[in-house]
Amino acid sequence: MCRRSSRPAQCDLATASAAGPALTLQFLPKREDLYPVDEYAEPEKQLHRHVMYHAQPGDMIVVDARGDMTSGVFGEMMLTYFKGRGGVGVVVDGCLRDIGPAKRLGLGLWIRGATPNFHAQTNIVPVAVNVPVACGGTLVEPGDIVVADDDGAVVVPVKLAPALLAVAQEHAEWEEFSRIRLAEGGDMRLYYPLSDEARPEYERWRAERGSA
Amino acid sequence: MCRRSSRPAQCDLATASAAGPALTLQFLPKREDLYPVDEYAEPEKQLHRHVMYHAQPGDMIVVDARGDMTSGVFGEMMLTYFKGRGGVGVVVDGCLRDIGPAKRLGLGLWIRGATPNFHAQTNIVPVAVNVPVACGGTLVEPGDIVVADDDGAVVVPVKLAPALLAVAQEHAEWEEFSRIRLAEGGDMRLYYPLSDEARPEYERWRAERGSA
Amino acid sequence: MCRRSSRPAQCDLATASAAGPALTLQFLPKREDLYPVDEYAEPEKQLHRHVMYHAQPGDMIVVDARGDMTSGVFGEMMLTYFKGRGGVGVVVDGCLRDIGPAKRLGLGLWIRGATPNFHAQTNIVPVAVNVPVACGGTLVEPGDIVVADDDGAVVVPVKLAPALLAVAQEHAEWEEFSRIRLAEGGDMRLYYPLSDEARPEYERWRAERGSA
Amino acid sequence: MCRRSSRPAQCDLATASAAGPALTLQFLPKREDLYPVDEYAEPEKQLHRHVMYHAQPGDMIVVDARGDMTSGVFGEMMLTYFKGRGGVGVVVDGCLRDIGPAKRLGLGLWIRGATPNFHAQTNIVPVAVNVPVACGGTLVEPGDIVVADDDGAVVVPVKLAPALLAVAQEHAEWEEFSRIRLAEGGDMRLYYPLSDEARPEYERWRAERGSA
Amino acid sequence: MCRRSSRPAQCDLATASAAGPALTLQFLPKREDLYPVDEYAEPEKQLHRHVMYHAQPGDMIVVDARGDMTSGVFGEMMLTYFKGRGGVGVVVDGCLRDIGPAKRLGLGLWIRGATPNFHAQTNIVPVAVNVPVACGGTLVEPGDIVVADDDGAVVVPVKLAPALLAVAQEHAEWEEFSRIRLAEGGDMRLYYPLSDEARPEYERWRAERGSA
Amino acid sequence: MCRRSSRPAQCDLATASAAGPALTLQFLPKREDLYPVDEYAEPEKQLHRHVMYHAQPGDMIVVDARGDMTSGVFGEMMLTYFKGRGGVGVVVDGCLRDIGPAKRLGLGLWIRGATPNFHAQTNIVPVAVNVPVACGGTLVEPGDIVVADDDGAVVVPVKLAPALLAVAQEHAEWEEFSRIRLAEGGDMRLYYPLSDEARPEYERWRAERGSA
Repeated sequence: MCRRSSRPAQCDLATASAAGPALTLQFLPKREDLYPVDEYAEPEKQLHRHVMYHAQPGDMIVVDARGDMTSGVFGEMMLTYFKGRGGVGVVVDGCLRDIGPAKRLGLGLWIRGATPNFHAQTNIVPVAVNVPVACGGTLVEPGDIVVADDDGAVVVPVKLAPALLAVAQEHAEWEEFSRIRLAEGGDMRLYYPLSDEARPEYERWRAERGSA
Repeated sequence: MCRRSSRPAQCDLATASAAGPALTLQFLPKREDLYPVDEYAEPEKQLHRHVMYHAQPGDMIVVDARGDMTSGVFGEMMLTYFKGRGGVGVVVDGCLRDIGPAKRLGLGLWIRGATPNFHAQTNIVPVAVNVPVACGGTLVEPGDIVVADDDGAVVVPVKLAPALLAVAQEHAEWEEFSRIRLAEGGDMRLYYPLSDEARPEYERWRAERGSA
Repeated sequence: MCRRSSRPAQCDLATASAAGPALTLQFLPKREDLYPVDEYAEPEKQLHRHVMYHAQPGDMIVVDARGDMTSGVFGEMMLTYFKGRGGVGVVVDGCLRDIGPAKRLGLGLWIRGATPNFHAQTNIVPVAVNVPVACGGTLVEPGDIVVADDDGAVVVPVKLAPALLAVAQEHAEWEEFSRIRLAEGGDMRLYYPLSDEARPEYERWRAERGSA
Repeated sequence: MCRRSSRPAQCDLATASAAGPALTLQFLPKREDLYPVDEYAEPEKQLHRHVMYHAQPGDMIVVDARGDMTSGVFGEMMLTYFKGRGGVGVVVDGCLRDIGPAKRLGLGLWIRGATPNFHAQTNIVPVAVNVPVACGGTLVEPGDIVVADDDGAVVVPVKLAPALLAVAQEHAEWEEFSRIRLAEGGDMRLYYPLSDEARPEYERWRAERGSA
Repeated sequence: MCRRSSRPAQCDLATASAAGPALTLQFLPKREDLYPVDEYAEPEKQLHRHVMYHAQPGDMIVVDARGDMTSGVFGEMMLTYFKGRGGVGVVVDGCLRDIGPAKRLGLGLWIRGATPNFHAQTNIVPVAVNVPVACGGTLVEPGDIVVADDDGAVVVPVKLAPALLAVAQEHAEWEEFSRIRLAEGGDMRLYYPLSDEARPEYERWRAERGSA
Repeated sequence: MCRRSSRPAQCDLATASAAGPALTLQFLPKREDLYPVDEYAEPEKQLHRHVMYHAQPGDMIVVDARGDMTSGVFGEMMLTYFKGRGGVGVVVDGCLRDIGPAKRLGLGLWIRGATPNFHAQTNIVPVAVNVPVACGGTLVEPGDIVVADDDGAVVVPVKLAPALLAVAQEHAEWEEFSRIRLAEGGDMRLYYPLSDEARPEYERWRAERGSA
């Protein structure tokens, strides 16, 4: 199970969680002899647009922007398009721009920061779509399930997803009970993790709740 | 007086200030030969639990997590227990996890960030409770008074607390008057700091207010 | 056109944008033999006060605090005075203090962080007012137009301001149309940037809206 | 011309310069589900070996180790093999191990540091050979000419190499003359860059030297 | 086996390797109310002196200076004393001072840098001797065996030392053979790691050398 | 006395110490509208040349390059001129270029690193000569005495120089005696700092040496 956090900090948003398969985008440093085009001259040559053409409802975009704090990978217009296509979240090991209106789109955004620069003004350029990338110190492959909330983003390989869900479900159930007890001043040694001693009490609570 | 800031950034919270005596927890890097246990195997061997067993109403927990950005020192469940015991705030030179629900508990949280990892997955382990620790570049001893607000957390040695309060009280009174004058476009040379020239005006204002 | 971002992160505020001519303040490291005075002994010797005496309605203060994270350049009282004088925003390559009440003043604040320390307690001191300074990796001259929003702050030389406004106006108009189409799932190749193919549609939309 | 430095610091060596076509190696973060093999179990599955199988006399290896300071990309044994194959230098945006004996091999080494760890113990793994990589903030393509000396490493696209050599040759000639004059206390305004006024003197010096 | 590197960079020295049991010294941030003494007023109150009083021939001192780059933990005089007592090396997660003469003492020095400041001028103070410390991201306990060379310093728990030596010995023997073959242009697939196919050749080489 | 280190690391040189009055040079970030000139078009417009025109025998140049690691402030040619003028050392809070030949000039160099880039290729430009600057976290005024050795560079205000020399002289004398005793295994409590108990022994040693 891959519970390593993708470190990009999250913007404070209403939609504080999102999950879905990853579309990936890789940036590398710009070199004058390799990236001569002006951004608006031939937009379709820009690879960061192309990652969005693959978007299907429920997708998450994961971008390896190499931690760059001066390039805004996407702006409001392209994020609007991604939202229009059904996208649910964007994780960037770098920055977005137009962050004010971007937050109001209802996408989940896990990023390092915001900047008014677009990437063609700066030192990085998109070079590949849907290849394995690094983001927040974690390798992400296209199609991996990205699960993100206030704590950050986590990558789950598809084949491990069913096992993860089973464990998480069981865990979530007794935590609900324990949370109530702990908030009342209950003993952590009994309730977290749930001790054998407290399990019967939990089972009764669960049975009662079920019958309610 | 120790007005040096404890640097951990604060989460945006309703309860933006807290103060109380410090309980301390020290982390060190994990070493395979010294920390073989699995987190849920013998929970009581985990020292980060023990700092909470000492909690009394009004306490603040201060954690030296060595600036580690990948370990979540406490999660929602343990913070719920601490709140249930009457704790008022947590200062961590590192991260918490379950930060979404954690913010809703009503504790003051002064931290560097959030992460989904718990500490047993990562590079640091708790090694001592209620020893002197470093947090945000400041030494904190158990029992020191920690005072924290939007600006960060400050440590006040108990023996200096009365003197600090006296100075702060006098300062707060004339600042209230000066704030009003400055907001009206008053001259900073007169009102901040309060000049001898403006003092009579302040005294009149104070007297009038007192009689109101 | 100088679209390089001034990197200081923005506090979350209601007033998320501001623009105006720059007043500048330069800090350098403190040296014992050059800065013997106690802060409250002779306030008028402190240069950070003097930048505010120049303030006129609509001004922005830009501070080169050399990225220092332990010095609070201004506190609530001085910011209140600046607001009282009609100031609209403060950009600091470093920190403010009293950040809780400071945020409630209605000024735009673009800063790296907050701290309870005032600068006389720490390692930097103000040395010059209204000289060219560096802030967020950008040179700012007194009188430059600073434009700031959620993405950060940008410097526009006065002589380039009219040209910038013309370009921005034209851009803003077709973006409004394109935003609507993209949100509906429209094709990005048509609408962003606005293609020649979609321009007639845009012109019709614009004409209709104008006649409405 | 790409005169941007590849930032990796150079070890202090007798052979302080090297140049040759680039072989490239890309690392990404390790993920448990994708890199299960033990280093010595199936060595040929390790891609960092494969970059060396392509080595021809005069080659330079350029490694994108993502700035990682805890993984030793190559050790003495593999560097000995590369030297045995005629390799001339290694540029790593990260670390080597066995650095003591490695320095004595006579290869040029441009690296960020040394570590006793080999990469299978740490967080990065080799994922591709002879693809475009980032190293020291510069994009390097397989076959680019890497030129390195005490100042660091520079990338020259093959097509620009002849033009670069022509400019460099002319520049080197007058610099030799100017260096002598400056060391004698000559006027920098005359000699650096070579002024029109000093050019006849240079031409005479050059002619005399040629006839010597 | 604990092969994690202690990151402090090594000074370029003739004696490029050292090993021995660890004496440890812990620093914490200085606080005015807790460290009022002037360095030369009562030297024996300074704990960094006391770690040296425990020194026996062959010892290594390991210092957790919390990565501080402005405090010189030891200077030439104290290092001379340590050398006079038979000490063999010093590992500091921070700085030394008097580094020029210190290098000529013949001690192994693994440090982050040098500074002219002594610690009483700066922000950290020694607080404990021979307690577990963190150094270079690794936990070191008093008595652990520290092994250091050009690659950095490594910690070996005493109980693992015999096993480590056995593995290292076997490894070192075939590496000597393989190194020769690789330097001659031999095939890395055969010789590194030593393949089953090449083992007979190695055994012959070893036998011949033994009989020489 | 200003014993704060100027942090720039020193290159390994034969001449490991230098001292002299400071000439200062200040850099700020480059802005396209303010720095249009090509480097070789009008060299005399470049301010970094002008700091050298002030050089007198024994001078040290101190440069505030704002910690920039990509700009080479001076190269071999200009350093040759400075040496030809009698300059003794250069302290840069940033980089030099041509570092190989530069080291052979016999100047003391205290720098953060080396790079092949010259500053006009990068993000900083010289803006002022002989103004107060920051270097390594210390304020340096033109004419301050800069004293530098393997530990780094220190600034001494001219008026404090005589007092500093007196203290240093006395200190140096007893340290010579103590160093001998400590190297023989003498007791640090007696000899460092020199105790009242050991002073008579020191006085005898000093008298004997004087009569030799």
